[in-house]
Amino acid sequence: MDFAATLQQYVARVESGLDRHLPAANTRPARLHEAMRYSLQAGGKRLRPVLILAVSDLVSNAQSKIENLSAAALAKADPKSKIADALPAAVAIECLHTYSLIHDDLPCMDNDDLRRGRPTAHRQFDEATALLAGDALLTHAFGLLAVAYADQPALAHALIRELADAAGSRRLIGGQMADLLAEKQANATNEELEFIHLNKTAAMLEAALVMGGLIGRANEDDLNSLRLAGRHLGLAFQIIDDVLDATVDTTTLGKTAGKDAKADKTTFVKLHGLEKSRALASEHSNRALLAFRQLPGDTGFLAALISSMASRAR
Amino acid sequence: MDFAATLQQYVARVESGLDRHLPAANTRPARLHEAMRYSLQAGGKRLRPVLILAVSDLVSNAQSKIENLSAAALAKADPKSKIADALPAAVAIECLHTYSLIHDDLPCMDNDDLRRGRPTAHRQFDEATALLAGDALLTHAFGLLAVAYADQPALAHALIRELADAAGSRRLIGGQMADLLAEKQANATNEELEFIHLNKTAAMLEAALVMGGLIGRANEDDLNSLRLAGRHLGLAFQIIDDVLDATVDTTTLGKTAGKDAKADKTTFVKLHGLEKSRALASEHSNRALLAFRQLPGDTGFLAALISSMASRAR
Repeated sequence: MDFAATLQQYVARVESGLDRHLPAANTRPARLHEAMRYSLQAGGKRLRPVLILAVSDLVSNAQSKIENLSAAALAKADPKSKIADALPAAVAIECLHTYSLIHDDLPCMDNDDLRRGRPTAHRQFDEATALLAGDALLTHAFGLLAVAYADQPALAHALIRELADAAGSRRLIGGQMADLLAEKQANATNEELEFIHLNKTAAMLEAALVMGGLIGRANEDDLNSLRLAGRHLGLAFQIIDDVLDATVDTTTLGKTAGKDAKADKTTFVKLHGLEKSRALASEHSNRALLAFRQLPGDTGFLAALISSMASRAR
Repeated sequence: MDFAATLQQYVARVESGLDRHLPAANTRPARLHEAMRYSLQAGGKRLRPVLILAVSDLVSNAQSKIENLSAAALAKADPKSKIADALPAAVAIECLHTYSLIHDDLPCMDNDDLRRGRPTAHRQFDEATALLAGDALLTHAFGLLAVAYADQPALAHALIRELADAAGSRRLIGGQMADLLAEKQANATNEELEFIHLNKTAAMLEAALVMGGLIGRANEDDLNSLRLAGRHLGLAFQIIDDVLDATVDTTTLGKTAGKDAKADKTTFVKLHGLEKSRALASEHSNRALLAFRQLPGDTGFLAALISSMASRAR
């Protein structure tokens, strides 16, 4: 497997999916739809949608090689259906992720001017348009899942349930809120920091992996392995983010660097120092790898993806 | 039928449902869940959830009296299921409506201090908390539908699709965006005003009626009548709102009155004058009534509900 080429193919599929599964930019009111597309098309690693595509491929290929499909509850509920296309789900999760970034960048939140090297939505348009574009991308994520998987209502339902749970007040939004509250405290504890990152960062990675599994008809054991992998991937990812914020300049990062230290924000780096943080990131990456290895089939692409992420913080 | 007593029963059911189907106020992070409950429990007419309950009762009672259920596609998809409880759907639509009010009140939008006679969410808490509480209520609306109707995935799917469509960038959010853009123009046309209100106001009333119909297993004809009724109800409702803003004081209204004239905003009253606006509201109310009369069963409650709404503007 050529990792870089495979990754590029997945990213290209995501980009074309974003164009296909969003309302056209000239849909009335045009300013709203332009803002939705502006933020979605700002690039980025496309990590979450790539995970959906890769896991769906992995699991469905492995399933097709074994006869025993009895564990796949969804196959029973939609018995005549083929394995569904994972692309709409990949687009849905990128819409959801992008909404969270738009709202997170707003003046009342992080008040950030730069995102992925370009002006943030409220700088490019205005605050109200950015607010509504975020709301619209969040809503579109659910609407797209409902429409694209309409011929497999049980699958559509399972995907929507997973996404709503991961994005809800106990997880993604709860993590954002806890993050804001922690900024006002002099010192957040390691437990508080883990709560924030398990929800603010890991929840959506878990959701991406599990949604890929649901589409590929993973059995319960595999779904649990995917969820565990997402948890460790999320923590690894967040620690790496903290390390990068402390060590890399704004141009390289594509967003304002050094923010955490400037705000005296509690991060893994502040709590544990750079060296220990790098070791922690490495430990969580390894645990994610171990969880992936429980899955059937060739997990080489997922392993290489984790390695390439982990190497950024070195 | 005693209209006031029936209405009171429906509203009481909604209030108890709001308490039951929201995460507890002490759910971590507590500040977020307190803000969600603060905004939801501010009272209000509960029009949308009452419509879901009333239509679901109407349609399911009528269906149980006739033998021919063949048109009910959902009954085929979930053949063994009973008529589902409409209350979770009623709570979901109130969550969605409340999110739209919280975001609409934010400083970058209408910048309103009062809502239903109490401080708006961002005045009671702060802007970031209000933003996130709105996001969380929007997400919860979809999550609640997915969880509460999990044993009838086809119904869950249909409800989510209807709600996502009504709340999306072409309808509710599109109407909000068009409204903001119209405020910056010297003169919006009647066509633009109708676009705004069909989407900002009528979309969610349509969704409430159709969702009630889906739960009660209305056939296609009845769903179309419900959609038509929602359209006219929405226009009537919005024109009445414009009339009230121009004629009633802040205390009576429970929100800042006279805002439209102060902002020189284009409203039905500005375009057509008070008298013509009242006549228009009456015309749309009557058309909604006619559409309701196409439905089987006793539509007396729905008719009385429209009359009581329409009488506010006299």
